[in-house]
Amino acid sequence: MTEQQHATDTPFGSDSVGIVSPQTLHFDQPLMLACGRELPEHDIVYETYGELNAARSNAILICHALSGHHHAAGYHSADDRKPGWWDSCIGPGKPIDTRKFFVLSINNIGGCHGSTGPATLNPATGKPWGPDFPPLRCRDWVESQRLMMAHFGIEQWAAVIGGSLGGMQAMRWSLEYPDALRHCVVIASAMKLSAQNIAFNEIARNAICSDPAFHGGRYLEHGTSPKQGLAQARMIGHITYLSEDGMKEKFGRDLKAGDLKLGASGPVEFQVESYLRHQGERFAGSFDANTYLLMTKALDYYDLAREYDDDPVAAFSHAKCSFMVISFTSDWRFAPDRSREIVNALVAADKPVSYAEIEANHGHDAFLIPIPRYIAVFGAYMSRVGEGL
Amino acid sequence: MTEQQHATDTPFGSDSVGIVSPQTLHFDQPLMLACGRELPEHDIVYETYGELNAARSNAILICHALSGHHHAAGYHSADDRKPGWWDSCIGPGKPIDTRKFFVLSINNIGGCHGSTGPATLNPATGKPWGPDFPPLRCRDWVESQRLMMAHFGIEQWAAVIGGSLGGMQAMRWSLEYPDALRHCVVIASAMKLSAQNIAFNEIARNAICSDPAFHGGRYLEHGTSPKQGLAQARMIGHITYLSEDGMKEKFGRDLKAGDLKLGASGPVEFQVESYLRHQGERFAGSFDANTYLLMTKALDYYDLAREYDDDPVAAFSHAKCSFMVISFTSDWRFAPDRSREIVNALVAADKPVSYAEIEANHGHDAFLIPIPRYIAVFGAYMSRVGEGL
Repeated sequence: MTEQQHATDTPFGSDSVGIVSPQTLHFDQPLMLACGRELPEHDIVYETYGELNAARSNAILICHALSGHHHAAGYHSADDRKPGWWDSCIGPGKPIDTRKFFVLSINNIGGCHGSTGPATLNPATGKPWGPDFPPLRCRDWVESQRLMMAHFGIEQWAAVIGGSLGGMQAMRWSLEYPDALRHCVVIASAMKLSAQNIAFNEIARNAICSDPAFHGGRYLEHGTSPKQGLAQARMIGHITYLSEDGMKEKFGRDLKAGDLKLGASGPVEFQVESYLRHQGERFAGSFDANTYLLMTKALDYYDLAREYDDDPVAAFSHAKCSFMVISFTSDWRFAPDRSREIVNALVAADKPVSYAEIEANHGHDAFLIPIPRYIAVFGAYMSRVGEGL
Repeated sequence: MTEQQHATDTPFGSDSVGIVSPQTLHFDQPLMLACGRELPEHDIVYETYGELNAARSNAILICHALSGHHHAAGYHSADDRKPGWWDSCIGPGKPIDTRKFFVLSINNIGGCHGSTGPATLNPATGKPWGPDFPPLRCRDWVESQRLMMAHFGIEQWAAVIGGSLGGMQAMRWSLEYPDALRHCVVIASAMKLSAQNIAFNEIARNAICSDPAFHGGRYLEHGTSPKQGLAQARMIGHITYLSEDGMKEKFGRDLKAGDLKLGASGPVEFQVESYLRHQGERFAGSFDANTYLLMTKALDYYDLAREYDDDPVAAFSHAKCSFMVISFTSDWRFAPDRSREIVNALVAADKPVSYAEIEANHGHDAFLIPIPRYIAVFGAYMSRVGEGL
């Protein structure tokens, strides 16, 4: 596709990748996992935006976060009103400029948007994997993404890019396959989660596993789904992805229903309660509970420097790429301090690194939002990535 | 009791109030509530520490927070290893010095530690009140505390003191009955909750109400209790009462079980997960779910200045007492900013106010902990309260 085509073919404007279609690739060979088990075969659902150049040197890998998937940009039909999750950053003229770059966005294994995961059939039993799906680490996703890379005949990514859990995958790429990427962009991420982060993930998991419809993870075999628990988990997550100031601005103490005057009776509902419930229910209708458990555990277990004597400088000494690290002031789940730790380790390891802390009151969700300075800084870095392709 | 008696009668040391016994008072007269309904009759369970002087001028009212109760200091038996919840601040030589003050600590109506609440019998039906218990506001507790005041023949409190939701009651006292208190001590509190606070309370309530054992609040009639939901609610609360730094120091990423090495399989449990689960289960075994719902709603609905044209300065202009306001640096649930708003409004209303922001990494729970500077500052203020009694 070219820019001109978008402007005429679709109603989405010249900075959109337009209508995109997910594809599926099947891998027959077993994938050895960090837990010591093998995934016998697997599917990967993916989308691509832009064109791979002849030298295959302009490929960008997008790594998704906890609830993300392959549909990062564009629309699935002309009536589709909701673009991909990172449409603010991927498209003609956007930071990840599809006039220059070929962008590959996949749904990770363990996910629930078409790639092999707990909700797909275990070939050994003919039943859904459910709780028997192997536990995954970030490095397993890197290995699976390597297979995709080989499929496309790409020898080196121009950049591996991700926010949050996606940033953790990008960093893992830089350590495991230093020659396979020229740039690593790590947004709103961390080298490991804090005890508080783990605690929030644990209560989210507890909500799911306590739902009577969970059935020890075999809910699909029971023809049900732990929707209450999953909604509760999402509500917890959602609060922590927003900032206190952002919530104040968006909802304040406004009421959706009822009256708080003295003498008034009947139920009272704050706007923020109604919003959270809606978010929880919507998510629970489209996400797989076992995937949520698997993804939060991968987050908790991630520790960039564990295999490097707990020394992030020693870890990053293996990297050969350049780094861009971005954080957001009001992000308290992956706070700027966590990004500064990454930057400090990279500097100590003598690696080229750019760092930007973006003023934003959107909390952790800021990485999905087209905040002007964020877009400018990210775009400027990506221009350098695109130089001389 | 005197200090000498404690030192010889009990094994608890000279700065403890020693062994204490809860008492119960029954009130026959109906109590008109803010919602427009009447509580036909009610019991109040209480404890007292120290002696009421002849002038009845040395009485201190302790207002408890969300999960608090009447047992604020001392021990219930010689084998009792766990003192009352605010034992760090109440006793001979402690900030609330029982050699000088007569301290009254009650379990608020709506509670679940012996005072009339959702778990007690509704005289009209002979069944537990359950979800039919009237919704309460802070001002209802003030009214109920007024009845206790009259019972003891106290015309003016030397001070009304509370942390968190307790501080909200203390502030309400200063506006509703300006002549009834000389001092108001407001610790780790706020004039109203933020959207984020309301959101956390809502997911806690959602956890309780989603538990199949909740039965629309009539779980006692079903001979059960929504323990899973209540445990989940407590876990959520608990994370938010601690600070990120405090959790890091206490738990870090230490494992309780399992192994995160590559190739290791089997379940992994972080210390912080085990701790939270234990806290949740313990709480769920001793607290009433309907009380939790009622208390969190009272918190959410509290808005100091609602009946004063949303102007806290106009609200506080009615107060006649002196104020002490205390906050803790790492408390993000009732942040120092919220206390500064109280102080600023008091200053603008030309009221005498002392303010201390205490450096502490214990989060909201800091108000329960004997942090030296906190104890010193609180104690110094209480010395002034005790002058010339």
